[in-house]
Amino acid sequence: METKTFDLKKQLLADYDTRWSREGISGERLASRLGKLSEIGLTANNGSRRPGFSSEEREAKNLVAGWMKEAGLMVRQDGAGNLIGRLKGRDKNAPVLMSGSHVDTVPDGGHFDGTLGVLTALEVAQSWQETGYVPRKPYEVVVFSDEEGSRFNGGLTGSEAMMGDSDIEALKKRTDYDGRPFEEVLGDVGLSAQTFMEAKRPLEEIESFVEVHIEQGKRLEKEDLPCGIVTGIAGPCWLKVTYNGVAGHAGNTPMTDRQDALVAASRLIHKITHLPHKFSSSAVATVGNIEVKPNGTNVIPGEVTLYVDIRDIHEGPREQLIDEIIATASHISASAEVSVDCRKVHSVAPVPVSETLQADMKKAVIEVGLTPYFLPSGAGHDAMIIGHHLPSAMLFVRSKEGISHNPSEWSALNDCVQAAHVLKHYLETAQNK
Amino acid sequence: METKTFDLKKQLLADYDTRWSREGISGERLASRLGKLSEIGLTANNGSRRPGFSSEEREAKNLVAGWMKEAGLMVRQDGAGNLIGRLKGRDKNAPVLMSGSHVDTVPDGGHFDGTLGVLTALEVAQSWQETGYVPRKPYEVVVFSDEEGSRFNGGLTGSEAMMGDSDIEALKKRTDYDGRPFEEVLGDVGLSAQTFMEAKRPLEEIESFVEVHIEQGKRLEKEDLPCGIVTGIAGPCWLKVTYNGVAGHAGNTPMTDRQDALVAASRLIHKITHLPHKFSSSAVATVGNIEVKPNGTNVIPGEVTLYVDIRDIHEGPREQLIDEIIATASHISASAEVSVDCRKVHSVAPVPVSETLQADMKKAVIEVGLTPYFLPSGAGHDAMIIGHHLPSAMLFVRSKEGISHNPSEWSALNDCVQAAHVLKHYLETAQNK
Repeated sequence: METKTFDLKKQLLADYDTRWSREGISGERLASRLGKLSEIGLTANNGSRRPGFSSEEREAKNLVAGWMKEAGLMVRQDGAGNLIGRLKGRDKNAPVLMSGSHVDTVPDGGHFDGTLGVLTALEVAQSWQETGYVPRKPYEVVVFSDEEGSRFNGGLTGSEAMMGDSDIEALKKRTDYDGRPFEEVLGDVGLSAQTFMEAKRPLEEIESFVEVHIEQGKRLEKEDLPCGIVTGIAGPCWLKVTYNGVAGHAGNTPMTDRQDALVAASRLIHKITHLPHKFSSSAVATVGNIEVKPNGTNVIPGEVTLYVDIRDIHEGPREQLIDEIIATASHISASAEVSVDCRKVHSVAPVPVSETLQADMKKAVIEVGLTPYFLPSGAGHDAMIIGHHLPSAMLFVRSKEGISHNPSEWSALNDCVQAAHVLKHYLETAQNK
Repeated sequence: METKTFDLKKQLLADYDTRWSREGISGERLASRLGKLSEIGLTANNGSRRPGFSSEEREAKNLVAGWMKEAGLMVRQDGAGNLIGRLKGRDKNAPVLMSGSHVDTVPDGGHFDGTLGVLTALEVAQSWQETGYVPRKPYEVVVFSDEEGSRFNGGLTGSEAMMGDSDIEALKKRTDYDGRPFEEVLGDVGLSAQTFMEAKRPLEEIESFVEVHIEQGKRLEKEDLPCGIVTGIAGPCWLKVTYNGVAGHAGNTPMTDRQDALVAASRLIHKITHLPHKFSSSAVATVGNIEVKPNGTNVIPGEVTLYVDIRDIHEGPREQLIDEIIATASHISASAEVSVDCRKVHSVAPVPVSETLQADMKKAVIEVGLTPYFLPSGAGHDAMIIGHHLPSAMLFVRSKEGISHNPSEWSALNDCVQAAHVLKHYLETAQNK
């Protein structure tokens, strides 16, 4: 008899407090579904590999579609492959309340990123069915396509298509990790550039969006809280900084006669760590990528290019921080006698969550008996794309050690189920508005 | 009629002051020989490509062998392919005075590095022949094999063999840029591991060595001097420093909760610039090579490895500087909460030039009518290998903009010829000792 070596459901249930299974929300069902999804694209490291528009993502969506039907939802797929399960409301003219996330994963990713947001949204629909709650407004559970973007080095593809933000010409030019063009890959799963553009929905159909997601950070773990209210999604700005000095022989150039591009870059990297808090408590700035030329042990670096990833949930402080980093880079350039070039190569506007939606989420947290805690989202999510157009909220679930995009990504079932309860209360408040 | 687009001789003679051709030293001959050597392995960029143990290095040695004979030298080749031209001395029991350098070049290198040292040594022999000067001690002009080492990622191969410093087992394991083993490449030019080991010479045969070489730095240019007296050769020590922090999401990790390996490395790189002058005016320390993992724009660097190249002509201050850099790296490790590992991966002892030989060279400089100027050699040379066993001196020739290992490497013929005169005076003083 073969022993099953990886059993996510079993692991999740091992320390589950069954008292959280109530009011139609079932921890056992959530664990079972997380377990079934984990089997699709399971890697040798017990991680997950479900690239956007792959057969694995397709299979995961099909599995969710079956559960949607079980929960009494009408299931359809839009032209971008977004899966939508709709529960009719009593008021057929009311705009939709929408919740969901994605089921694609990074290569060798974890089993909670995305799937948890889909399954908690579904759990709320199923709880309503079980308890006989009939919502006034329509409710939609959505599975967005290709959120992670590791296939085409992009991401948020499905939510952008729904919001009409897609640049289809740019997408057509992309090729995946096997060199296959975007349109050819779409064809694999029965989609086309034509259908893709038809995914755009009239914004007036939708009232708001809410996404449950693992934190991918350690704040909740530090606070010892199962979930937290997201104050905003910090859109990233990437600043490309290039220092040009003079390459030279490491032995034959006196210390006082150097124009060392790496020394200048190092001063900047160090100084950057002291700048974010001057502008916002939620701002961060990171240098994660650096390229040194010629990168020879005995050659003074002549050219260094680095990228600064700058984020905040508020656009004003983020712009001030960007300006300060550019000013600092220039100041170092002058004193180190190396030239500098700074340019923004990527910028996504941050999405602050409205005070109203934060207050609604706080009310839901308190109703469930938890302590409200507010935290920013440093990562982008489908809620960021939707949030550029419609009121959007997020609820974060505690991540063990903050690990994410990794097979060891973990959120305890107790935390996941509590988040489902909070989401349910939040959506019921929204139903009654 | 085809026009010759690259003509080194013509370029050299363009601003040559013919009054420097005297006492048997000929600038025209030196320019002609530099020109002829430049044609062997000439690259598309008008640079030089004569790898160690290649047919091009062989051809260059053959050309030099012909000139050696023309100057009245007895020519032989040792088992490592070192070419030796010997002029008998009046006193047949006296030890040899030796001078020379190499004719191999880095890929797309210049036309002065190495060749100038060989041709000035040869010019002295030829001047003696022309003026009827018969030395008391034997004089040898030597062309060492494979000094640059770009073929096998090594270097100083010929001089090490002559001094008996070769690690033949390590050499045998090396493969060249085409993946061919060391011994197979030796076979191309009629050598073998067996002959290679036979190249070792009894040290008592040789009194001292002197090498003329381009500076590969800008000190002489700044001082507006044609040549300078080398005070010592700064053996490099390479320190490999690895910082291990914690990789994390650039957006979801607060600035106060980071263990960023690149920030720690940056602090070290910056601090290193302030340390060398504390120990020695000739000490330098350089971080030229850095590897960041995972090197993703939106990931806090978890691991950074960098190499510090530390040099001085004096061993004591160099060791103190190394200790100070290790202490600084550890101090940063503690305050940044990242671990650090420092290890020496390569260390060549520096070679100070003796006060006596420096004084002899100073006397020669003054006799030629020049201003004595002393400077360290930051780069390794064949004279460093010989200097570990025998008294050795060096004379540097001004390099335009300090550029070296590059097609635009340049030393004016006036400077080269003045260096030949200084070398001649220096060797005549040594003859009379």
